[in-house]
Amino acid sequence: MATKKMILDLDTGVDDALALAYAIADPNIDLIGVVASYGNNLLEQTAKNSLQLLELLGQDVPVFKGLSHSSTTNHFTVMQVSKEIHGSNGIGNISLPEPSHQVQPKDGVDFIIEAAHQYNKDLIIVPTGPLTNLAAALHRDPQISQLIGNVTLMGGALTVEGNVSDVAEANINQDAEAANEVFTSPLPITMVGLDVTLRTLLTKKETQQWRNLGTPAGTAYADLTDFYIDAYYRLEIDKHGCAIHDPLAVGVAIDPSFVTILALPMKVITNKHNYARTIGDKARLNARHPNVKVAINVNQERFVPVFMNHLINLLANH
Amino acid sequence: MATKKMILDLDTGVDDALALAYAIADPNIDLIGVVASYGNNLLEQTAKNSLQLLELLGQDVPVFKGLSHSSTTNHFTVMQVSKEIHGSNGIGNISLPEPSHQVQPKDGVDFIIEAAHQYNKDLIIVPTGPLTNLAAALHRDPQISQLIGNVTLMGGALTVEGNVSDVAEANINQDAEAANEVFTSPLPITMVGLDVTLRTLLTKKETQQWRNLGTPAGTAYADLTDFYIDAYYRLEIDKHGCAIHDPLAVGVAIDPSFVTILALPMKVITNKHNYARTIGDKARLNARHPNVKVAINVNQERFVPVFMNHLINLLANH
Repeated sequence: MATKKMILDLDTGVDDALALAYAIADPNIDLIGVVASYGNNLLEQTAKNSLQLLELLGQDVPVFKGLSHSSTTNHFTVMQVSKEIHGSNGIGNISLPEPSHQVQPKDGVDFIIEAAHQYNKDLIIVPTGPLTNLAAALHRDPQISQLIGNVTLMGGALTVEGNVSDVAEANINQDAEAANEVFTSPLPITMVGLDVTLRTLLTKKETQQWRNLGTPAGTAYADLTDFYIDAYYRLEIDKHGCAIHDPLAVGVAIDPSFVTILALPMKVITNKHNYARTIGDKARLNARHPNVKVAINVNQERFVPVFMNHLINLLANH
Repeated sequence: MATKKMILDLDTGVDDALALAYAIADPNIDLIGVVASYGNNLLEQTAKNSLQLLELLGQDVPVFKGLSHSSTTNHFTVMQVSKEIHGSNGIGNISLPEPSHQVQPKDGVDFIIEAAHQYNKDLIIVPTGPLTNLAAALHRDPQISQLIGNVTLMGGALTVEGNVSDVAEANINQDAEAANEVFTSPLPITMVGLDVTLRTLLTKKETQQWRNLGTPAGTAYADLTDFYIDAYYRLEIDKHGCAIHDPLAVGVAIDPSFVTILALPMKVITNKHNYARTIGDKARLNARHPNVKVAINVNQERFVPVFMNHLINLLANH
């Protein structure tokens, strides 16, 4: 497996924190930057969370600010349910030292564009929140859709119901217009949605292994993930554990063999009725080379142990 | 390929007529009976259509009457769009001689139950209309869900939008309650929905081959299918040809390798909001052996020629 340059576009978030750790730990991934997005929390907070977690994990990876609200609004307010699932600070209400680094002065959208030109097909972008930053990058420089190697995004729901409405998944629901622009662009996309992420569950058996490491990072990651597992139980999302949505996107980005895919031309509904539904586009159904591959099944028996190995190796040393 | 006993549950219908011809022509299929359903037309009319087509094709296959309306209504009226697509008589307004045979006195639902007990796993049922008859059979004798080899149905839409609403496919929409009972029963089901049937198009190039045979059956089948192709064009369903929905279900029933499948526990929405949507059931997502296999892709380059070979061989001789 060749090493790939990766940009994470995170709205950090508990499972974003897990995705960040995975991307750092996997030796096949060269994490060149984190772009912050609004979503699970406000942009300022998600950027701060990423800075704090990178320092906790001993990493010197630059963090850039993306856009602070959707493409169709001029303001963003955190949903109450996001606070209940991710904690009011986004990372399970754990306390971390104030970051010693600052976010980069460069705009996050421009960073994506420059990286696309610099790394071309070696660049993978993994958005785990709204697709607002990526859509903005396509607007500023449409050429990047021909350059970027792959966009592996956590979002959407094709073969199961949504988690915000019966059709809408939370990330897509934040900005369906931006998502539709991304899905219908020429970008090569892998959609890692609820179809597969709801099948990859983590429990306190796994977080106990991190806690047992006795390191600051092991304890912090156990604490923030336990908050999330408790929220899943309390809100009756799943009583068996928490879905590790965002780490699965990182895993699939670097090793697509974790999932079974369906190549399908996709669109995102932007009407009020069934807003943010991600669905195959009948008008392009017989297209020879659909740009979107949808993950429709996952080998969770293989993925979860790989995820755990990477995280244990990383958390043991920080 | 072992020969299988097959029951067609038809609401005949142009593409039902094509499915009937396919089932007769394929030497691997032993068609033991046709059950009539309301749907594309009234029960009386669809039963008559099946009788007439069987006589046109020189077949002595018994036709049984199923139920005349959905499980939640006491009356059925043909939708205007059905008349526009299939003709006011259901078979493209072609004229066929009055049938010399009558429908069987035995009830069609009872026929399904008796066949399940007689043939067990050798029995395949192919419903190409509403699932009302099959749900009624499950009610009368739940044991048959453990007996029947396979139900390969034309209906539903998982990865694309519907054709009655943005979520609902026409057959499921006739009786979503019955469909949900069938999908959530232990019956082994293969769903051949719009996901794949919209990819298998027939054009007047193909129907011209039937017309060129110079036989009564060749002419009749060319005429009824041309009506359907013209309706597809006029109603802007597809300008490239007509979808051969129901024959694909027959083809997949006897040779599943025509399609790629996704094993998924399915449910059918019976609420008013998004009525008749066929969608994966999150609550059973990690079930080890889902009873439903959804066809999500089709090798149309292989299927259409096989379909044409079978029909030409049959229509040439009648």
